[in-house]
Amino acid sequence: MFHKDLERIFHPRRVAVAGVSTEGFGFGRGIFLSLLSMSFAGELFPVNPRGGEILGRKIYRSIDEIPGNIDFAIIAVAASQAPETLEKCLRKGALGAEIISSGFRELGTPDGVALENEIRTIAQRGIRVIGPNCFGIYCPRSGLTMLPGPDLSRESGQVAFISQSGGMSIDFAFMGPWTGFHFSKMVSFGNGVDLRETELLEHFKDDDETGIVSLYVEGVEDGERFSRALRETSAVKPVVVYKGGQSEAGQRAVTSHTASLGGSRVIWEAALRQAGAIQVQSLEEMAQTCLAFSLLPPRIYRGITVAGGGGALGVAACDMAEAYGLSLPHLEGDVYEAVLSCLPKPGSSAANPIDIANPYVPPRMIREALIQAARDERVDIQVQVPLLYHFKALSTLMGMKSFQEMTPYLEMAAAAGEVTDITGKPVVVVLPNPRRGEKDMDVEELFRQARRAFLERGIPVFDMLSDAMRAIHNVSAYAAAHGRQNQ
Amino acid sequence: MFHKDLERIFHPRRVAVAGVSTEGFGFGRGIFLSLLSMSFAGELFPVNPRGGEILGRKIYRSIDEIPGNIDFAIIAVAASQAPETLEKCLRKGALGAEIISSGFRELGTPDGVALENEIRTIAQRGIRVIGPNCFGIYCPRSGLTMLPGPDLSRESGQVAFISQSGGMSIDFAFMGPWTGFHFSKMVSFGNGVDLRETELLEHFKDDDETGIVSLYVEGVEDGERFSRALRETSAVKPVVVYKGGQSEAGQRAVTSHTASLGGSRVIWEAALRQAGAIQVQSLEEMAQTCLAFSLLPPRIYRGITVAGGGGALGVAACDMAEAYGLSLPHLEGDVYEAVLSCLPKPGSSAANPIDIANPYVPPRMIREALIQAARDERVDIQVQVPLLYHFKALSTLMGMKSFQEMTPYLEMAAAAGEVTDITGKPVVVVLPNPRRGEKDMDVEELFRQARRAFLERGIPVFDMLSDAMRAIHNVSAYAAAHGRQNQ
Repeated sequence: MFHKDLERIFHPRRVAVAGVSTEGFGFGRGIFLSLLSMSFAGELFPVNPRGGEILGRKIYRSIDEIPGNIDFAIIAVAASQAPETLEKCLRKGALGAEIISSGFRELGTPDGVALENEIRTIAQRGIRVIGPNCFGIYCPRSGLTMLPGPDLSRESGQVAFISQSGGMSIDFAFMGPWTGFHFSKMVSFGNGVDLRETELLEHFKDDDETGIVSLYVEGVEDGERFSRALRETSAVKPVVVYKGGQSEAGQRAVTSHTASLGGSRVIWEAALRQAGAIQVQSLEEMAQTCLAFSLLPPRIYRGITVAGGGGALGVAACDMAEAYGLSLPHLEGDVYEAVLSCLPKPGSSAANPIDIANPYVPPRMIREALIQAARDERVDIQVQVPLLYHFKALSTLMGMKSFQEMTPYLEMAAAAGEVTDITGKPVVVVLPNPRRGEKDMDVEELFRQARRAFLERGIPVFDMLSDAMRAIHNVSAYAAAHGRQNQ
Repeated sequence: MFHKDLERIFHPRRVAVAGVSTEGFGFGRGIFLSLLSMSFAGELFPVNPRGGEILGRKIYRSIDEIPGNIDFAIIAVAASQAPETLEKCLRKGALGAEIISSGFRELGTPDGVALENEIRTIAQRGIRVIGPNCFGIYCPRSGLTMLPGPDLSRESGQVAFISQSGGMSIDFAFMGPWTGFHFSKMVSFGNGVDLRETELLEHFKDDDETGIVSLYVEGVEDGERFSRALRETSAVKPVVVYKGGQSEAGQRAVTSHTASLGGSRVIWEAALRQAGAIQVQSLEEMAQTCLAFSLLPPRIYRGITVAGGGGALGVAACDMAEAYGLSLPHLEGDVYEAVLSCLPKPGSSAANPIDIANPYVPPRMIREALIQAARDERVDIQVQVPLLYHFKALSTLMGMKSFQEMTPYLEMAAAAGEVTDITGKPVVVVLPNPRRGEKDMDVEELFRQARRAFLERGIPVFDMLSDAMRAIHNVSAYAAAHGRQNQ
């Protein structure tokens, strides 16, 4: 069942922000200014017992004073004031509230636990609570933003993120668009007194805007219901899970972070595998995996070609491939000859890895080489590794001031897209970006432009070959678990 | 024995460059222009049978035509011409030559093998040969540069790099200064017909300029002599080894790359461990490990604190620490209270991981917290994780155009240095840099400035916590192998 009330929480029209001071760096003032900066679509009502004004807007002295009803509240008052504020929101007809204040169960004190229990009791009377001790909701379509996000993207995408951690949420909110995808909704639920991982998972299963669900979790409340939700969601869309606190020391840290009960590493691994979810080991891997799910057809990828980047990269590619269940079929016969005929000589090798002797080979030749290589039926996917930074050396040698014009990244992106379209076998690009000092900001800028060009053409881009292979492996693992093969 | 002749090869005074064409993108012309661009310290003599001029300099038609003797040559002619050219260099009194041309044994053809054998025979008559199929020598002090390096650093440092791969060399040459160290000398030896890994290792063992030796190797020629050289060098300075081609497929790729014989993964791991060398699994890990060896005292590090960055990062820190032989001692009693008193409340945790509730805490408070934490005798090293990018959000909220002025990275660097000095326990910094699009180049620039500030204060900086822990682990492994503990 799709939870209509939950959906309305992501798109509220009248929102109270409790705890907005007229100056300083407090959370309440921060989130209020962030909502303005994001051009949030609804009406905002700042609240503070001291009253006053902020940017010419009246600050209400209490939730009660707001004219008419509200449908959502962001609560950033001291923990001890949170229950009373929440109670007022309930009376004002709010469907939900996020409590971004901390000072509850995570403190491990009797006072903290008691306050959190009060929150829970009020929630059970009919207001959905996100938090406390969280960064709240981010929804690009409505402009509802999380702490401290005044500059998150307003572009919507298909990735939902459910997170016990606020820090992970804000980092992931920035990491997504950079990596190459956007979000449908994001919820940082912190201590999770009411709305948390399982119910959100059930919600995003039925959310048409959401095509991929990602999840950072430290512990769950109802293991059985969580496993069922995970299994049912994985059956219709990829679910990517990063479980924090897998070590003994990590579990201890979890206790003081979100006060969750963990569960052993082995149990988690088995549960996630059985549910057909994909487990990742870092936020970076989660982002790269979401990108791969966004742009690659859900197939089992085994045979891979790696083209460009020099001989040692090819050697490293082979070493890595094994670990990710991939293999580099040795090209032979007329496919080999056809690939070789597209490459500069001497110094190139067409056997796969396809070692291209110099980084300045025109994109149309690489295009032709990849089309030829795809004729080998053992090849499922191709990875191209252009070394853009070498164009800087070339432009230095040629005494040119800007090397961006001479770097054919647009042609490269078009070629990669065409090879994918023509062969039906995806091309993935790795753009190694060995950063330098402040004087080479032009290389960094070119790198970002090129990255965007590939993404706009629907080509997944990764910084490192190992990242690409791991992400491809994760897509394969999902396809294998759900029986989708080369359809 | 220190090889004086080898040392002279790194600082030649009269250098012939064979294969310099007046136009185009050939290797010979490229390396010649690169040497000019690097302000190479010696005299250069371009050579090409067609003669002509390049930048107003005469191109000699043959090595023979150069007036007087030469002491080094860079050979970039077609493979078939290489033996004759090398012969002429020998007659001109050259101590050594690098052959950057390819088209030899790596082709796997009888012709290629025969040409390489000719080179070997000439080398044995008294000229040291680097290559063929290599990128040559890079020596910051003399300005001798490798292919295609017109813009490598002229600053000398203590890291030597010996590499079978040219691509790895040029990447590492840029990666070093960015990561935070400079090079004494670097040699890409390719097919290694004469001078290669073992003899270079022996040389750098006795080289006073070199404090750390790094090595990318695909296969060795004389296993016994190599093992001895490795053991003897490791006994006096850290040796960091990246072995390429550990998988079966990787070995196949090695054959078409540098035609080396590999050896199994297990044998290599055992040999490196027995020699007391440190094995790494990527160029990035090699760079981070060289940085750690440059700036951390060679001790066994076990107890670590992780401060800042939010609760989930602390959880991840604990999960990772286990894998790298590190532990996060739980701070207690008066140390705990003293640390807690330096942190913002509520929301902070002083138990270790030290979770700092907001990223805007003044550096002097972090400084005090770390000094207090170091009082726990189980703590050997401390990792600080400032989230600089949050200052961008703060400046957006405050309507400021530049956030660089309000980000106290200089104070942070000074504080980290002072904590190291006062406590005798190193502080290591992790600067997470979640990149965004082209519009956030100011964040990237700030990040690079901050990086430099920490490095200039002698503080190792890493992008990711896992990188820092792995590098610390590698230093510990070296100290353990060589019996240096907390001296």
